[in-house]
Amino acid sequence: MPASNIRIDGERLWSTLMETAQFGATELGGLRRLTLTDEDKQVRDWFRAACTDAGCTVSIDEMGSIFARRSGSDPAAAPILFGSHLDTQPTGGKFDGILGVLAGLEVMRTLNAFGYTTRHPLEAIDWTNEEGSRFAPAMVASGVFGGAFTRDFAWARTDHDGVTLADALARIGYRGDLPCGGRKPAAYFELHIEQGPILEAARETIGVVTGIQGIKWVDMTVTGQASHSGTTPMPVRRDALVGAAQIVAVARSIAERHAPSARATVGRFEVAPNSRNVVPGSVQLTVDIRHPDANVLATMHAALLDEARRAVAPLDIAFETVNDSPPIAFDPICIDAVREAAQRLRLPAREMVSGAGHDAAYLARVCPTGMIFIPCEGGLSHNEIENATFADVAAGAQVLLEAILAADQRLP
Amino acid sequence: MPASNIRIDGERLWSTLMETAQFGATELGGLRRLTLTDEDKQVRDWFRAACTDAGCTVSIDEMGSIFARRSGSDPAAAPILFGSHLDTQPTGGKFDGILGVLAGLEVMRTLNAFGYTTRHPLEAIDWTNEEGSRFAPAMVASGVFGGAFTRDFAWARTDHDGVTLADALARIGYRGDLPCGGRKPAAYFELHIEQGPILEAARETIGVVTGIQGIKWVDMTVTGQASHSGTTPMPVRRDALVGAAQIVAVARSIAERHAPSARATVGRFEVAPNSRNVVPGSVQLTVDIRHPDANVLATMHAALLDEARRAVAPLDIAFETVNDSPPIAFDPICIDAVREAAQRLRLPAREMVSGAGHDAAYLARVCPTGMIFIPCEGGLSHNEIENATFADVAAGAQVLLEAILAADQRLP
Repeated sequence: MPASNIRIDGERLWSTLMETAQFGATELGGLRRLTLTDEDKQVRDWFRAACTDAGCTVSIDEMGSIFARRSGSDPAAAPILFGSHLDTQPTGGKFDGILGVLAGLEVMRTLNAFGYTTRHPLEAIDWTNEEGSRFAPAMVASGVFGGAFTRDFAWARTDHDGVTLADALARIGYRGDLPCGGRKPAAYFELHIEQGPILEAARETIGVVTGIQGIKWVDMTVTGQASHSGTTPMPVRRDALVGAAQIVAVARSIAERHAPSARATVGRFEVAPNSRNVVPGSVQLTVDIRHPDANVLATMHAALLDEARRAVAPLDIAFETVNDSPPIAFDPICIDAVREAAQRLRLPAREMVSGAGHDAAYLARVCPTGMIFIPCEGGLSHNEIENATFADVAAGAQVLLEAILAADQRLP
Repeated sequence: MPASNIRIDGERLWSTLMETAQFGATELGGLRRLTLTDEDKQVRDWFRAACTDAGCTVSIDEMGSIFARRSGSDPAAAPILFGSHLDTQPTGGKFDGILGVLAGLEVMRTLNAFGYTTRHPLEAIDWTNEEGSRFAPAMVASGVFGGAFTRDFAWARTDHDGVTLADALARIGYRGDLPCGGRKPAAYFELHIEQGPILEAARETIGVVTGIQGIKWVDMTVTGQASHSGTTPMPVRRDALVGAAQIVAVARSIAERHAPSARATVGRFEVAPNSRNVVPGSVQLTVDIRHPDANVLATMHAALLDEARRAVAPLDIAFETVNDSPPIAFDPICIDAVREAAQRLRLPAREMVSGAGHDAAYLARVCPTGMIFIPCEGGLSHNEIENATFADVAAGAQVLLEAILAADQRLP
């Protein structure tokens, strides 16, 4: 059986998406499946059983991530990994993360059906707590796997009720024995919905993801003087909101100067005292800036601080950069494997940089990594009405399979 | 005794301000004396006793306002009223309102000391619930007196715990028998701190208040589309905060085009979902615009709606005008009486329009009305560190006395 003739079963894959959507289903057709809850245990048990039925050996690591392994022909070869996450946002959809995990199962089932044995072992993975909605930070399990966090740091994270991640793992029986990380996979692939509007708008099916944007989060506090809205003449006001509003324009302008890749967002605004007849005395706000190029991102960051300070003068302003995630470039062999698979299948595709973070970001620290995007309806994600088409889901899974098989042939 | 020789006793007045500041005193040197609380009852009882000791006849009306009457020589003459309020904001100061009430007591004591009898009867007043912090709306008792609200409407107002104003009056023994309103005073004067920075900055002692600004409050909702801050390209965003920030600039610009009297303030901002990595989907905000001239205020209001709509396009915007208080012009005889008193006393003075609302606004509906402002430190009010100088307090009370005596001679 030549690899080029192997086809995933789109109906079978779609049925697993719909079947597992019962675990944590919401009235609006989405999912509420916070990590390590009873609903998460239900879908984990389902996935483990399905992988076992598909002949895989299932292991659980210390962080609760599930590894379903299918043997290869070369006992010395490191495994090719692929997966994503089964947990969701509090009001999430049926595709974010889940597609990548169930497509991994579909790859296993397809290779079984075609009787194809890879040289490398393969492992389909469900990473624990990608979303970070219950335990911060997000992507903590792949982060430990990739060496960004220690296991003990991750175990000590607590949810809103003070439950530690370690206790939450034990409660549902998913605190495994397999050490998390410390090994060197041959490669990692992740199929995911784009969570943005670009592919849909361009009527393209496949995003060949070349990396993940760098992100900086800057917290700012603009301080003026609260005063009476009726008695304080305009020239003597120190209105913090007038200053803060200009920072919104500054952020927008910086993104536009570094178009088309740059992003800048003021997402939070806390006005004090926030009373209709009081001139605002202070505003706390957050700015999220992103760019795929670390140098451009540094330039944007410097411009943001400088221009924000000048925009609010003579008001006072304080800055704190609370997150600084450098851009990640994926591996050329993995990128090529994805691009060539799309070309071979005559799927309209484009190279793109991921705007969101993914488990692949941490895997890229330890092995060659690639990602595949498919469109989602209206670009909407983290939303119960998140949607993707049957055809795009099947196409994405086929590209995943072919990229894995290409990597299997090319990688040592 | 010619009227021009009568002098109030600044020390006596100051001591009453300091003595009554024990009722509801806060650690920071301010007052927390919400209307109709135990602290309010304490100061009311003190005021009633002091007025009785000064030979006045004290009546309580249905709204709990206290009227301390000193007889005049003409039994047919209507009374000249003067006063303000003894209640405070939750974190208020020692002067806002209180000065005007205790200066009224000082007028009575001074006239007694000098053995002077006016032609009109005089009434020193404490108006119930000027602040509106416990029961909305503010100035509800003077509002009933002036015919803006019915007594039953006012009685039915409830506080945060569901207590009606009528029950709160009864609880402290201040639901009186005297009908509220329905009579025609000869005049009303009110001495108050400016609650703004103008007099202090100009080193002037007396504000000759010619009226009260008109006020319009507009609630706005800007609606865009919430989306992911990392995956949503700038050109396709519908960022409600980018639109709302422009409204802050629009409001500022409208005030500046109608300088120096116009005011425009965006005081409240509620961003949704208010998350640092989500493009804001909607913003609710409030705009407070003020001007002494009704026509200019109407022009500002029309410009605000038109320019806000254009500034946020193509985002959606909805407007609601939730308050529309027309400007109030005080009576020329009362204004002259205040101006001439300041001139006679060689006090630096200016004519000005009140930026804030006062009980005088409702009194102006039923009788000739005037107000006197004195400076407050840093223009600060509604603040525990609110302050005024001994000299300015004494000067303001002297102007109040002389304006009353001038009106007594000029008014029928």
